Amino acid sequence: MEHRTIREFTNDPISSEVVDVLMEVARRTATSSGMQAYSIIKISDHSLKGRIAEVCKQEYVAHALLLLIFVADQYRNHRIAMEKDPESITVVGMDHFFQAFTDACIAAQNVVNAAEPLELGKLYLGSILNDPQETRDLLKLPKWTFPVVGLAIGHPNQEPQLKPRMGNQLRVFENEYVCFDHYLNEIESYDTEMQEYYDLRDTNQRLDSFSEQIAKKSKLGLIKRQEMLNLVRDQGFDLKLK
Amino acid sequence: MEHRTIREFTNDPISSEVVDVLMEVARRTATSSGMQAYSIIKISDHSLKGRIAEVCKQEYVAHALLLLIFVADQYRNHRIAMEKDPESITVVGMDHFFQAFTDACIAAQNVVNAAEPLELGKLYLGSILNDPQETRDLLKLPKWTFPVVGLAIGHPNQEPQLKPRMGNQLRVFENEYVCFDHYLNEIESYDTEMQEYYDLRDTNQRLDSFSEQIAKKSKLGLIKRQEMLNLVRDQGFDLKLK
Repeated sequence: MEHRTIREFTNDPISSEVVDVLMEVARRTATSSGMQAYSIIKISDHSLKGRIAEVCKQEYVAHALLLLIFVADQYRNHRIAMEKDPESITVVGMDHFFQAFTDACIAAQNVVNAAEPLELGKLYLGSILNDPQETRDLLKLPKWTFPVVGLAIGHPNQEPQLKPRMGNQLRVFENEYVCFDHYLNEIESYDTEMQEYYDLRDTNQRLDSFSEQIAKKSKLGLIKRQEMLNLVRDQGFDLKLK
Repeated sequence: MEHRTIREFTNDPISSEVVDVLMEVARRTATSSGMQAYSIIKISDHSLKGRIAEVCKQEYVAHALLLLIFVADQYRNHRIAMEKDPESITVVGMDHFFQAFTDACIAAQNVVNAAEPLELGKLYLGSILNDPQETRDLLKLPKWTFPVVGLAIGHPNQEPQLKPRMGNQLRVFENEYVCFDHYLNEIESYDTEMQEYYDLRDTNQRLDSFSEQIAKKSKLGLIKRQEMLNLVRDQGFDLKLK
């Protein structure tokens, strides 16, 4: 419940024992149909960190001591299936894609949760998808894989405030989804709360209200992010569109 | 690290305080760009549980005391953006879809982790996507939303063995993805281990080896699962395919 994004880490190393524990936690995470369809790439190479930081457009990523990329991975399973039964015609479809994507996400969150009692700071990097093709190339990802999310982990060197969140009345429903007539009225007090929160990224500046942020983010999508389904197809997943 | 899937629960109720804690944990989960693009639907209606159990093809889902469906949700944000700036032309694209999908997954895993020290059993239901359109209809999901994963939670009435998992040497890599020449050789001992594990779903029967399971699952995709991207498009997400 005290989750905060940490963007500034100390230079204290993370022991290999701790890394092993985090990888074991990932290994034990629930997995769709037992398929274990994800992989993790630990980035230790300094120049590779820099290239990933460029994709992320977040300079501090280059200095992350532990940088993990979670990958949706049906390559391994597809290879196993073909070796097991070379006669079979197997399709790697969107079902397999979403299973693998989900596996990668929940493994990442399990690692985040495991890092919490170890007093490690965590930074999710959805921004590896700013240029998904470049991320694929940098990590030499084969067919039937797709980069999902990055995670930087280290000892925190900042203490951000807990960021205000929208109330659950707008997003926890019973038995069916509820649409509201006027969302701006509903989030009015949350909007005010967000404006009073200081983001450490820019210490002396108040944030936009939530609704202002959402209005901006709805307009300003990076085109390579918008078009990422093309890469999903290029990676060998059968979109099965009618 | 002790995660097990629990399929059989006692009839002991889960207090509303515990449910509130789990929902608060979901609310505090990390979220892509702060957009909080997911919703949760608690299923309390008995007949609705039965309909969802039919989609899942898992009869025991009908008896889950706490049944949660995590939904990727850009409807709320899109409505906020349009109310804030009615002149703007906003697109809800695949970038927004994947952000919302990721938000829903990591919130689900945070709830799973929070349930662990409360000694609650957990069952992930990827099977709500066996018929994604039916799931959408049952939950009355509006445009720009998509059902991601279900979660049944209750007091465990079984003690399954810890399920064997593939070794990390096949899926944790350094700096780049590593393809192996012969996967069956690599997973030989894991294959044997899986055959020696008894799944409580079918108490007296040994499991197929992992490679046998993967070979079967690679062939037997439900067509409605394979074609789920059509529903993503129908739900209003711009696929931006070239």
